[in-house]
Amino acid sequence: MSMEALFNPRGVAVTGSVSPGKLGNVLINRLVEGGFEKVYALNPKAKGLDGVPGFASAEEISGPVDLVVIASPAPTVKDVLEDCGKKGVKAAIIITSGFSEAGNAEGEEEIKQVAKKYGIRFTGPNCAGLVNTHSRLLATLEAAPPKGHTALISQSGAVGGNIMAWAHEQGLGISKFISYGNGNDLNELEFLKFLKDDPETKVIAMYLENIKNGREFMQVLKEVTPVKPVVIIKSGRTSTGQRATLSHTGSMAGADAVYDAAFRECGALRVETIEDMFDLCKGFANLPPVQGRRLAVVTNSGGPGVMAADKAEEVSLNVAEPSPEMTSVLKGILPPHAGVKNPIDITVEGTGEEYSQVLTEVLKEYDAALALYIGTPYLKALPVAEGIKRAAEMSGKPIVSTVLVGCDVEESVEFLKAHHLPNYVTGERAVKVLARMAEYHEYLTNKPELSEIPEQKAFLPGTGPVLEPDGMALLKENGIPVPEFRFAQSPQKAVEFCRSVGYPVVMKVVSPEILHKSDFGGVILNIGDDQGAEKAFDQLKHAAAGRDFRGVVIYPMLKGGREVILGLTRDVQFGPVVAFGLGGIYTEVLKDIVLRVAPVDKKGAQEMIRSIRTYPILKGIRGQEPADLDALADAIVNFSRLPFLYPDLEEADLNPVFVFPKGVLVGDVRLVRSGSINK
Amino acid sequence: MSMEALFNPRGVAVTGSVSPGKLGNVLINRLVEGGFEKVYALNPKAKGLDGVPGFASAEEISGPVDLVVIASPAPTVKDVLEDCGKKGVKAAIIITSGFSEAGNAEGEEEIKQVAKKYGIRFTGPNCAGLVNTHSRLLATLEAAPPKGHTALISQSGAVGGNIMAWAHEQGLGISKFISYGNGNDLNELEFLKFLKDDPETKVIAMYLENIKNGREFMQVLKEVTPVKPVVIIKSGRTSTGQRATLSHTGSMAGADAVYDAAFRECGALRVETIEDMFDLCKGFANLPPVQGRRLAVVTNSGGPGVMAADKAEEVSLNVAEPSPEMTSVLKGILPPHAGVKNPIDITVEGTGEEYSQVLTEVLKEYDAALALYIGTPYLKALPVAEGIKRAAEMSGKPIVSTVLVGCDVEESVEFLKAHHLPNYVTGERAVKVLARMAEYHEYLTNKPELSEIPEQKAFLPGTGPVLEPDGMALLKENGIPVPEFRFAQSPQKAVEFCRSVGYPVVMKVVSPEILHKSDFGGVILNIGDDQGAEKAFDQLKHAAAGRDFRGVVIYPMLKGGREVILGLTRDVQFGPVVAFGLGGIYTEVLKDIVLRVAPVDKKGAQEMIRSIRTYPILKGIRGQEPADLDALADAIVNFSRLPFLYPDLEEADLNPVFVFPKGVLVGDVRLVRSGSINK
Repeated sequence: MSMEALFNPRGVAVTGSVSPGKLGNVLINRLVEGGFEKVYALNPKAKGLDGVPGFASAEEISGPVDLVVIASPAPTVKDVLEDCGKKGVKAAIIITSGFSEAGNAEGEEEIKQVAKKYGIRFTGPNCAGLVNTHSRLLATLEAAPPKGHTALISQSGAVGGNIMAWAHEQGLGISKFISYGNGNDLNELEFLKFLKDDPETKVIAMYLENIKNGREFMQVLKEVTPVKPVVIIKSGRTSTGQRATLSHTGSMAGADAVYDAAFRECGALRVETIEDMFDLCKGFANLPPVQGRRLAVVTNSGGPGVMAADKAEEVSLNVAEPSPEMTSVLKGILPPHAGVKNPIDITVEGTGEEYSQVLTEVLKEYDAALALYIGTPYLKALPVAEGIKRAAEMSGKPIVSTVLVGCDVEESVEFLKAHHLPNYVTGERAVKVLARMAEYHEYLTNKPELSEIPEQKAFLPGTGPVLEPDGMALLKENGIPVPEFRFAQSPQKAVEFCRSVGYPVVMKVVSPEILHKSDFGGVILNIGDDQGAEKAFDQLKHAAAGRDFRGVVIYPMLKGGREVILGLTRDVQFGPVVAFGLGGIYTEVLKDIVLRVAPVDKKGAQEMIRSIRTYPILKGIRGQEPADLDALADAIVNFSRLPFLYPDLEEADLNPVFVFPKGVLVGDVRLVRSGSINK
Repeated sequence: MSMEALFNPRGVAVTGSVSPGKLGNVLINRLVEGGFEKVYALNPKAKGLDGVPGFASAEEISGPVDLVVIASPAPTVKDVLEDCGKKGVKAAIIITSGFSEAGNAEGEEEIKQVAKKYGIRFTGPNCAGLVNTHSRLLATLEAAPPKGHTALISQSGAVGGNIMAWAHEQGLGISKFISYGNGNDLNELEFLKFLKDDPETKVIAMYLENIKNGREFMQVLKEVTPVKPVVIIKSGRTSTGQRATLSHTGSMAGADAVYDAAFRECGALRVETIEDMFDLCKGFANLPPVQGRRLAVVTNSGGPGVMAADKAEEVSLNVAEPSPEMTSVLKGILPPHAGVKNPIDITVEGTGEEYSQVLTEVLKEYDAALALYIGTPYLKALPVAEGIKRAAEMSGKPIVSTVLVGCDVEESVEFLKAHHLPNYVTGERAVKVLARMAEYHEYLTNKPELSEIPEQKAFLPGTGPVLEPDGMALLKENGIPVPEFRFAQSPQKAVEFCRSVGYPVVMKVVSPEILHKSDFGGVILNIGDDQGAEKAFDQLKHAAAGRDFRGVVIYPMLKGGREVILGLTRDVQFGPVVAFGLGGIYTEVLKDIVLRVAPVDKKGAQEMIRSIRTYPILKGIRGQEPADLDALADAIVNFSRLPFLYPDLEEADLNPVFVFPKGVLVGDVRLVRSGSINK
């Protein structure tokens, strides 16, 4: 199996010059220094390096060679692969650049063909190499990371190297580092799938700058995240500037928000900075699951405890007070002047034993704990670290710590690390980790069902812009509730229809040349009688003078509902995406919009509804009846199916949608046909 | 002068046992190790320590002694002061605890009296000591910090020690460390004033857990911040839980928001975490002022550049593209495949000289720059650091850097530090610093005028709860516009007044026993004629049956304004505080409220208006006419004067206030008399 050859090779050949300072030289030294034993130099002059023997051809090597690390110039790569293929090499790390990234797609295709011929799988070209700390394989020019259980896949070799160089100081161990460069053969998806089953990897960290196929990526993430957590940095806005072509509703959320939505939907955890990545991976690699949001803060210093508790509330952890029973237990353990609310302040005189007992007790009713210890340089911190360890063992629950200062602080931090107790430089950073871990646990316990992609049903009606009555009919046909409506082409019909709909009514102009009806005086509200209806028809016809006037559409006046908006767009990476937000002037100003990749199932729709900031308004505040969130969720589900049912539907906006205490009704519809210029 | 004696003493006496492990011993060793020469041990047995001579009385010491550091038990402190006073000691650092913090207020008062008698000024008791790195005075049990230009005042000795212990790793130099413990004599205010004029201090960092007198603190801050920046950590919510007694409007903003408001108003910069404090102080201590928000990001790696630019936008820096002229200058410097938008990507091959040239050029049109360098372990970073230095010198403008990884990274970071070029571990942290520094500069260039406290004018009308017509009259009298209103006590008068106000009108019940009128059916809108008016009067009278019905108040129907709310409360620490927010259901859900300590001047009022998230709605979006923000600011100014004019005004809520394109009008008023139970 090629992955085995790549990560656990029996022998490794390295191409490239072995002269000092040359890449072949550096790579061989890396491998040897890392402790890998079966290394062979492969170069035309068959030059070796110190104890590493040199060969002109892989076939001359007597032992098994599973992997070749290629750093020789681009024109040589094809022949190297040919030679190695004959030897039976199964995998290659092609560090050499000068292929498609430099305009040489042809050369890249050639090496792909040769590799295919011999069944060689490869990472690169133009990559920064690969590391497996558990097999002592250090096939990279980047810094050697400490051994551990976080796998790192980086689209940028430099950023990956940066992370590895920093890992020791940050206390994070690496299981595997993978740079895939141009990703011609093996890419982030293959590696994700591989790492899912890698026993030495507990958490996968990814640094991404772009994604080729969003749907495929999501598919793989959905397979991986139930098995182990995936933490992602995706660098943002500027590189994706060209994607800012979302529908009006979608674009309010920002182009980059699609990535947020997609990752969240797949249970992957997006973080903003490399420090956040370190923190979170350290948590996942070391702690038992965070199965709830109740957090106890145990501290020996009031202020820092409060600062951590504040941050905890900000990230939606619950720093509730202990139960009366727990309170009396704590009072039994601690001196009278200690604080037994939460944060629990065991005071500056708190001992390691008190930390141990208090933590063990509180974890009987909390889901996780933060142990904060602000020492002084002349007091020993090690007993506190030992106390934390005892409590972690007794409780089996996650404890994060912030142990700072003390004459033995380094020893204490090493002690904690050795016992898989992650220590963070501030309580704030520690609680952020617990919150994200709780989020992951919530995902696992409430995973969305896999929505089936609906099959194509038809094309949009008509040929030009979709007229409002046609749009309303289409929504109705697909289970999205619309008000009663009539399409009238004469004043007589208008009056007749107004009567049948029942006054007061709304009348809107229908014309393929008038899309922004309101800006155009094309909407008349609150028409109360026949005379008003006739007048309104005339007025709308007049407003459309010189344009293709098709008639008017008539609705009853809708009242009393809360307004929301739904949008639909096709994202370059992710395809159809649904946007949902509270309607009206506030949405635009507050950008209170949530996105989700379509199709959306009911659970997903409910999550969308709950996740906007103004959700309490829908739920009903100040004694208001709650809006019919069930009907709204159904409408979102059905709306999210439209781009699959109608492949020529490019964009859609339902703005507003009225949500009543019972039922929902669409107030206006705009459907845009693909290729249409009338956006 | 006592401060001179405290920070630059000619000689220091230390009390407390000199036996190994005892406080006197540790303190003397600290002082000696720190390089302070004139140290004397002061203890009953006249025991010295190594080269430090011991004395039983200060009077026996021959040389001058300006300062005594007291670590002997509480009962001895009085006598020590007496003895030292006779010797002419001017200052004391009282580390000893066991005074008011332990219930011994009497003992504390005693030592105060002795100190006063001899003109000794002191910090403590129960403090962690004091450091002046510039006079080699290390009079503390905490870690010795590196020398530099940031002064640290910490209310918690442990947290202060923690910060000093961490300062070396974080690359921050300390000028002075001050712990004031119980703050009986010298406290944070005195030290702030002292540090304002301390030539060795460029920036003041404070860690606070509570403030005794908010107004006085603000007064001092307002004197200090124009001279040098003050960076504050104030630990939050939990410790101030008892303060959650703000008016309804104010409480929506959260109790801790008063501190935010007060600090902001005084130009002090509040930060959340110790890491943020380090970062910001490093910026202030080393960089020239950040005189605007235009930021150039110069990077050799795309993704991290984008991540930094994203963060920059989030913190309101302007990462605009360079001008066309600058673009062609950059194209002349850089190779064709470099990116000359912003971030400017000089590519992985970028040299130190390119960094230097590009930074120097862009700083001709940007206010600040971030130099991002993601090296590889086998490339040298020092030329980049040198390039950054040249650019900083040439431009005279602020450059922050993130130089990470490289075979000489430590050397590079040291080089930057030596040349006062702050380096941050991530670009995100670096740009956050620039944003806060820009905020400080904005404060300096647009300082609020000092508002005079208005003098008392009268008491609130009546005796019980203030009735609505009385409240409206009071507002009107004080320059806060109210609609025309009439108070009617009979149906006949009601009809007469409705006519004179002009239909349609609003009618509300007036009763000292009905405060939440709406909940009570006590408000009738849109009354159109005499008949309606009579009916409404009856209905309101009926609604008030069994209560003290005084009549009704009549207003014209107000339409078309945007609704805002104004609140006023008396904060325990800061006294009268004004709250402002957009009105309606959204305020409650979105907590879009801003606070400011009263009285508020016009500039302050304008800043309040601008700083709510929904400000664009007031300014007018979608072609709406802007609301009359000038009239609104005037109303806020006049409203903020009320608690001074009427000393018995405890709370007030104006909800809603209608802001029209021309003028404002108060829609409802609630004034609460102090001591009133009808809250």
